[in-house]
Amino acid sequence: MPDTNATEPVPERGPLPSDLAPYLETLREVERHLYAHRYAKKTLDVLGPTIDPAAVTADRGEALAVLEEEDHDLVCSPELKGALDHLSEHDAELDETTRAQVRVLRRTQEEMTLVPAADQAELTRLTCEANDVWARAKRADDWASFEPYVDRLVALMRRMAHERDPRRDAYDVWLDHFEQGTSRAFYDDFFARVKDTVVPLLMDIRSKGYQPSRDCVEGRFDAARQWQLARDVAELEGVNLDAWWLTETEHPFSEAMTTNYAVTAAHVYEDDVTRNLYSMLHEGGHNSYEQGVDPSFNYTSLSGGTSAGMHEGQSRFFENYVGRDRAFAPHLLELLKRHFPGQMMRVTPQQFWLATNRVEPQPIRTEADELTYPLHVIIRYEIEQLLFSGEAKAADVPGLWKERYKGYLGVRVPNDRDGALQDSHWSTGYFGYFPTYALGGAYGAQLKDQMLADGVAWEDDLSRGDLTEVREWLRQHIWRYGRSKDPDELIRMACHTGFDPSHYTRYLDEKYRGIYGL
Amino acid sequence: MPDTNATEPVPERGPLPSDLAPYLETLREVERHLYAHRYAKKTLDVLGPTIDPAAVTADRGEALAVLEEEDHDLVCSPELKGALDHLSEHDAELDETTRAQVRVLRRTQEEMTLVPAADQAELTRLTCEANDVWARAKRADDWASFEPYVDRLVALMRRMAHERDPRRDAYDVWLDHFEQGTSRAFYDDFFARVKDTVVPLLMDIRSKGYQPSRDCVEGRFDAARQWQLARDVAELEGVNLDAWWLTETEHPFSEAMTTNYAVTAAHVYEDDVTRNLYSMLHEGGHNSYEQGVDPSFNYTSLSGGTSAGMHEGQSRFFENYVGRDRAFAPHLLELLKRHFPGQMMRVTPQQFWLATNRVEPQPIRTEADELTYPLHVIIRYEIEQLLFSGEAKAADVPGLWKERYKGYLGVRVPNDRDGALQDSHWSTGYFGYFPTYALGGAYGAQLKDQMLADGVAWEDDLSRGDLTEVREWLRQHIWRYGRSKDPDELIRMACHTGFDPSHYTRYLDEKYRGIYGL
Repeated sequence: MPDTNATEPVPERGPLPSDLAPYLETLREVERHLYAHRYAKKTLDVLGPTIDPAAVTADRGEALAVLEEEDHDLVCSPELKGALDHLSEHDAELDETTRAQVRVLRRTQEEMTLVPAADQAELTRLTCEANDVWARAKRADDWASFEPYVDRLVALMRRMAHERDPRRDAYDVWLDHFEQGTSRAFYDDFFARVKDTVVPLLMDIRSKGYQPSRDCVEGRFDAARQWQLARDVAELEGVNLDAWWLTETEHPFSEAMTTNYAVTAAHVYEDDVTRNLYSMLHEGGHNSYEQGVDPSFNYTSLSGGTSAGMHEGQSRFFENYVGRDRAFAPHLLELLKRHFPGQMMRVTPQQFWLATNRVEPQPIRTEADELTYPLHVIIRYEIEQLLFSGEAKAADVPGLWKERYKGYLGVRVPNDRDGALQDSHWSTGYFGYFPTYALGGAYGAQLKDQMLADGVAWEDDLSRGDLTEVREWLRQHIWRYGRSKDPDELIRMACHTGFDPSHYTRYLDEKYRGIYGL
Repeated sequence: MPDTNATEPVPERGPLPSDLAPYLETLREVERHLYAHRYAKKTLDVLGPTIDPAAVTADRGEALAVLEEEDHDLVCSPELKGALDHLSEHDAELDETTRAQVRVLRRTQEEMTLVPAADQAELTRLTCEANDVWARAKRADDWASFEPYVDRLVALMRRMAHERDPRRDAYDVWLDHFEQGTSRAFYDDFFARVKDTVVPLLMDIRSKGYQPSRDCVEGRFDAARQWQLARDVAELEGVNLDAWWLTETEHPFSEAMTTNYAVTAAHVYEDDVTRNLYSMLHEGGHNSYEQGVDPSFNYTSLSGGTSAGMHEGQSRFFENYVGRDRAFAPHLLELLKRHFPGQMMRVTPQQFWLATNRVEPQPIRTEADELTYPLHVIIRYEIEQLLFSGEAKAADVPGLWKERYKGYLGVRVPNDRDGALQDSHWSTGYFGYFPTYALGGAYGAQLKDQMLADGVAWEDDLSRGDLTEVREWLRQHIWRYGRSKDPDELIRMACHTGFDPSHYTRYLDEKYRGIYGL
């Protein structure tokens, strides 16, 4: 076990000064209502792209919009504002949990107060509809039907960003929304360093001419068996299956209502079993984070993961650092052999490991290898900036998409289904989200290095297929804090230093120079 | 097509007097919030016994309880009270829809104002927990674990009934809650008439000694194929599958969020295919009713079915009057043959019809034939009265159950799983609900007779497997009105006379004397 004494424990709530009681009661009461709405909204959001018939989309959107309005009234009430102001002034008298609650709720209040409730409700209605249109557009490879929604969403989100902060660039506002403290300046710098590593590596790999074979993981894999495999992957990863629901959707995602209920919505392709495997490892990382938050935060604003980047940090941690590690390969292969004995019988762990680490530019982000993955993110980051600056319209996106994929990856995008329609994010208003995937990868690399420095027996654990110690380190240093700490503070506490992308670039460089003998 | 001119159309909302505008605005605003909460609560209620892990039960209960409290505050606000009082005084100036909204909301307000919000919230939390305990108790045949919940629920519901009306018998209050205008006096009279028909018929059948064979529907029926069959049954019945979700649960039930989203939760037994068949016809009746309400009522208190009895009137209509009619038998048999060709190949419609109409006392209510069915209801009605009067405690229930099943049906109850634990109703606080099943049967018989009098070509339609005309009659006379009319008014409008159980008793008498040659 690693030494965890260095981390402060999540503090118990002690008795608080009695003259603060009415303010704390206001806080507690608002939190109860926000909890119920959050539980309901998340549930409705999960059902939309998984279970609900298309016929009910507008009705669900209306219900969600009204719940949003109610949240707005709750959070922006003068009574709560008074209570939060007073409690902030008496910051020193609060226990740490209450102090965090006050801080998080004040930030939410500041954001919500600036944006009219009607705009937030409009975004909710519009994304409900747009997500439905997107799913059909993707199936039909029909960008034109989705196109007007992109323009409407960008216009609305630009307006909302302006309402939040008229002096700030609209896209910066949304970057900061998904990851506190980030901006184009931050990501420009980060992505420049990533490109400095990835681009030359990719050129070296190309000139090398060697490619590991993927034959061993190719073939036709029965869907029903893949669903059983999906369950086993989550179990191997350590997801608590007694507090979990696995369901089906077009574009995989995760959600959690409380620590007692995490959801993975997955998609199975009969012609690709590794896609399911790594997608499940990824979503299982999100589930683990949510299940690992201190349960006493469940009914408060401190519940759930602290940011998109830290969430992707956990999901990409299990997908890549664990799931694509040579030491772990025998255990994933064993699962595959259990469900597909005939097809996988003769495959060796080394063949399997190389096959799932082959660097090969192709058009689908979620199928990308670790090395080219950030380039997929950078393409979206650049196109989103063009949309938000007004330099591009939705009609330009398919063209831009093809051009950038050619430029960055040397890949021909065959159609919009495997191009600009591949991801659901824009349809749900997640402009500014994609960069957090790459950032999450970098968080994960830094956390892994720290874990090793703290004495986690990585190689040994993974080669035994035992993730207990790895999970416990993440739970201790990241998961349990929920939203009570911002991502930069979590990194600083866990790693005794600020965010440093060199862990990520060094990892990529060493790993792929090793595999390709460069 | 039947002559539907006799029925008034659901009126359009016309312009209303402008001095009523602020009151109407209050009404509209409250309805919007109630709609969102209803949508969320129904969704959470559906997921509880179908999808959710047991670990989240208390969290879901808490979310539901808070939404209940919010409804209480909305409905009981002095502002809404003032608006409803004012609008009631100007009743004559309102269009018919608004008048119905005011009437229904006032009734809800009167009920909610009397019961403290904390009690309603407690019932919500308790039923969430109890439903979960019940499901496990049933699986384990363990009455003892469920027993304390029955006592706690009865105590709480007695207190709530007393709060609603301290001068009235507590059980009467709940009977009236599920079916407006009913009481023990009403049901005592109704059940006496039912017993007068059923008991002698049952004795005659016993002495006759003849029984149709059930061999033709017995065997082992693959679960996956039964789920496909379930879908086909709903489609044959006319349920709109584009606004529908079929899911799995322990005890079948239906729900609907709006006219655009009906749910059936079903259960498949591999050793009994007719149970699935008739259960789907039953739940499809509930779905049809909800889908058939005027869609303009969706976001108002007029949405959904008007009462439990009228709901069961529709479900038992399709289960029995349609589903157990000789003319319809070939179509159900055809579905069975499609999914189970080997097993059903040689079965004739006449054999199938007789097999599914055999009168045979046995311990399970949902498997009961049409004739013994009301006796199952009467047993529950009697035991519930004993619980609510304090003459019996939960600990007495298994004994009472066995004694009454012996007395009424001559049946030995083998265990609590197939005895007092068979139904989920009590666990969800549905004391006083069971009588509506029998009442629904009687509503259905009266509606069927009226349908025939109105010229619906019953025999001809059913023998063609075409339910369009039957459904259209029900839509015109019952479904579209939603909650805008009470059940007695609907019966009066459709049948030009009040509720009359002789349609039901005559139907049973004629049908079973025919089948058994009495």
